[in-house]
Amino acid sequence: MTKSSEGDAKANSPKQFRDMIRKGEWTKPTIEMCRGYGQANLVVVPMEYAFEFLLFCNRNPQACPIIDVTEPGDPHPKRIAPEADLRTDLPKYRVFKDGEVIDEPIDVMKYWRDDLVGLLLGCSCGFKWAIQAANIPFRRYGGYLTTIPCVSAGRFHGHLVCSVRAFYNAPDAVRAVQISSRHPLMHGAPIHIGDPADIGIKDLGKGGSFIHPNAPAAEHPKPGEIVMCWPSGITPQTAAIESKIPFMITHLGGHMFVMDQLVEELAII
Amino acid sequence: MTKSSEGDAKANSPKQFRDMIRKGEWTKPTIEMCRGYGQANLVVVPMEYAFEFLLFCNRNPQACPIIDVTEPGDPHPKRIAPEADLRTDLPKYRVFKDGEVIDEPIDVMKYWRDDLVGLLLGCSCGFKWAIQAANIPFRRYGGYLTTIPCVSAGRFHGHLVCSVRAFYNAPDAVRAVQISSRHPLMHGAPIHIGDPADIGIKDLGKGGSFIHPNAPAAEHPKPGEIVMCWPSGITPQTAAIESKIPFMITHLGGHMFVMDQLVEELAII
Repeated sequence: MTKSSEGDAKANSPKQFRDMIRKGEWTKPTIEMCRGYGQANLVVVPMEYAFEFLLFCNRNPQACPIIDVTEPGDPHPKRIAPEADLRTDLPKYRVFKDGEVIDEPIDVMKYWRDDLVGLLLGCSCGFKWAIQAANIPFRRYGGYLTTIPCVSAGRFHGHLVCSVRAFYNAPDAVRAVQISSRHPLMHGAPIHIGDPADIGIKDLGKGGSFIHPNAPAAEHPKPGEIVMCWPSGITPQTAAIESKIPFMITHLGGHMFVMDQLVEELAII
Repeated sequence: MTKSSEGDAKANSPKQFRDMIRKGEWTKPTIEMCRGYGQANLVVVPMEYAFEFLLFCNRNPQACPIIDVTEPGDPHPKRIAPEADLRTDLPKYRVFKDGEVIDEPIDVMKYWRDDLVGLLLGCSCGFKWAIQAANIPFRRYGGYLTTIPCVSAGRFHGHLVCSVRAFYNAPDAVRAVQISSRHPLMHGAPIHIGDPADIGIKDLGKGGSFIHPNAPAAEHPKPGEIVMCWPSGITPQTAAIESKIPFMITHLGGHMFVMDQLVEELAII
């Protein structure tokens, strides 16, 4: 895709952009697309453990804020985008079996079953737009597995994944706390300020986060910068792995579901 | 109980106050007790429809903000007050069978079963303390059934119950919106400002709200006052009635579970 058509894609409405994805015309990350609109992490589980996973989300609400839950077997998120189809409208998926990734397809038509329940969980793109709208610069690192245990629910347990951002000074960091706090459905406020090693993130600069294992090495935070960590919607994927969940479908990191709602529509204040 | 011992009870810690309730020494409303501490609505459902009810809460998060969910059969809310017992530590309960109230006991030991799951949902006492702490006066009405349908989930459907408060002027009403917005786990911001008749509450002044059917007639709002309506944690009780749920236990309106956490500990900002 040329630069100019990528620019066109950015200008699409969420529905137009999802249509492109459905047709296989967009298989890349969504994170810079449809600016201002909410994006959501996807988790699909069999009805058999839907209660346990919904409870896991409720017990870990910053990592897994619930935006919508579909009816068993129904791929359409009726409340937030009734004409969307969770089987085709995300650019890339991950399919887990017994805690291992068995496929990373561009649609999950062949994996869909009548007993599957889809959950859409808010994504940090939400507060990212809001922080950028306030003209606050930051440097984003990847998503990293931490040593913070999630609160378990039934067979679901695992460690928290965090997204990490470095701010250039204290006033910017304070403002980022304020702004992200307005968006609890997009992970809300950071859960850690300071050295990421405190929560088990040993080397930020090392290329290779949990989400983008082949990402290039990132610049280390500099003295005076303030590093903050937010719970990430990738957390259910660590739960799938650590809990050896028999079957689960998620999006591939960064390849989200683009919602019809503006982030500001979902802000708490 | 004399005035002075009621005052003493008010000064109790949540744990001390729950111990009084457990011993049967307090069977009255909790709403003025343990000032500053969170209080929670209780809903207990069989595991068979725990998923549907948890989903109902997630789809109606302002009415039913989830504070804690117990394990099946376990009456102890392990995450927020492990030594508490949901069967005995609320002053009065309601037991529903097929959508009808069959009992209003002071404990539910005889109704407890191995398959019951307890859910604690935030209560408006939370933001009430916060509004009062900001020195904003208001007049509280009861809880009223509205014509606003809840989003259904499985067999759970019903209409929203709202608590209603009149503020004496616009700045106070604005401040109350701001303050309650900080407390999404305590129902958050109002969902209606203006004439309660717009949402089906026809006569505020008529004694007899949904929660306190025998309450004395309340003073009507005066011109210039601003009336605001908040979703209420009594809403699951209308769902039990309207959905004719086979079996459900709740607290009796106003007779809440007193939490160990201060309201401010649970505020979003």
